[in-house]
Amino acid sequence: MEEGLIGLEEKELLACCGSTQFAKEMASVSPFPCLDQAVSAARHIWFNLVDVNGWLQAFSAHPQIGQSPSSHPETDPTFAQWSKGEQSTALATATDSTSKQLSDWNARYRNKFGFVFLICASGRTSAEILAELKKRYPNKPIVEFEIAAQEQMKITELRLEKLFSAKQKAAVTGY
Amino acid sequence: MEEGLIGLEEKELLACCGSTQFAKEMASVSPFPCLDQAVSAARHIWFNLVDVNGWLQAFSAHPQIGQSPSSHPETDPTFAQWSKGEQSTALATATDSTSKQLSDWNARYRNKFGFVFLICASGRTSAEILAELKKRYPNKPIVEFEIAAQEQMKITELRLEKLFSAKQKAAVTGY
Repeated sequence: MEEGLIGLEEKELLACCGSTQFAKEMASVSPFPCLDQAVSAARHIWFNLVDVNGWLQAFSAHPQIGQSPSSHPETDPTFAQWSKGEQSTALATATDSTSKQLSDWNARYRNKFGFVFLICASGRTSAEILAELKKRYPNKPIVEFEIAAQEQMKITELRLEKLFSAKQKAAVTGY
Repeated sequence: MEEGLIGLEEKELLACCGSTQFAKEMASVSPFPCLDQAVSAARHIWFNLVDVNGWLQAFSAHPQIGQSPSSHPETDPTFAQWSKGEQSTALATATDSTSKQLSDWNARYRNKFGFVFLICASGRTSAEILAELKKRYPNKPIVEFEIAAQEQMKITELRLEKLFSAKQKAAVTGY
């Protein structure tokens, strides 16, 4: 590989976004000279090429907000670790009452929309997430489907950033 | 049932729109005093209550445009008959060349979007349908998903009209 280029593999990309179509398309245009170009490719692939079944597949890779990622059956260790990190503010600020409410509202949401409530949780408290869930709940299914896809993209960007940073460090130190 | 009211059953509603959620919700608010109220309920249920998985389920009940409905595995006889009737103009105007192109483009469409190309075919020629398919093909998956849902609603309305008219006739003649 040309010097300075960062190559991303399907398995690593699946930990950023759980759609196999996304991971395959991204891997096929890898390597990338910088994070910006990887993010730009990811946005194009996610919004223009991945079909609605692929969106649903990516959503289904997420644990319920407030729930441990390890309780989700097919979780990759990297995905689980990132998911936990993204929810660290929420987990630190959760009271028994908000945890219980979050769990109840998550169930209502899933029952109405057929997929898990998706939000880029990074830096958000448990109360903020709950308020957002309640605000989004009255939406039409198609509207909520698009919002969830946008939240997924924010999560994917954060994870691509982590992946890039780890790979750049490894390239410098030789590990 | 109160006189003048038309009751619709789940099985009949499934022939209008292949989403079980749609059929159940419609049956739960049946009977209807007139077609307009049934259509209005159907629109509300389809666009606000049926989730994205329900939309995909309804789409999958359709044969490929230009293909015989009976070649679709789980086709109800009423659904198949209506589907054939709606495509009668298309079938009558199809040449070998448009049929072949339609079949090729349908395959491309399905490959890109993950569901069958859906169009309210009533009164449209084979060439018109092909032109519409080519026009819609460059759309983003989410945009096409919504267009398909709107086309499904048009088909549902036409079928509700047929169902109503048959039921009203039966009520008058006693059959």
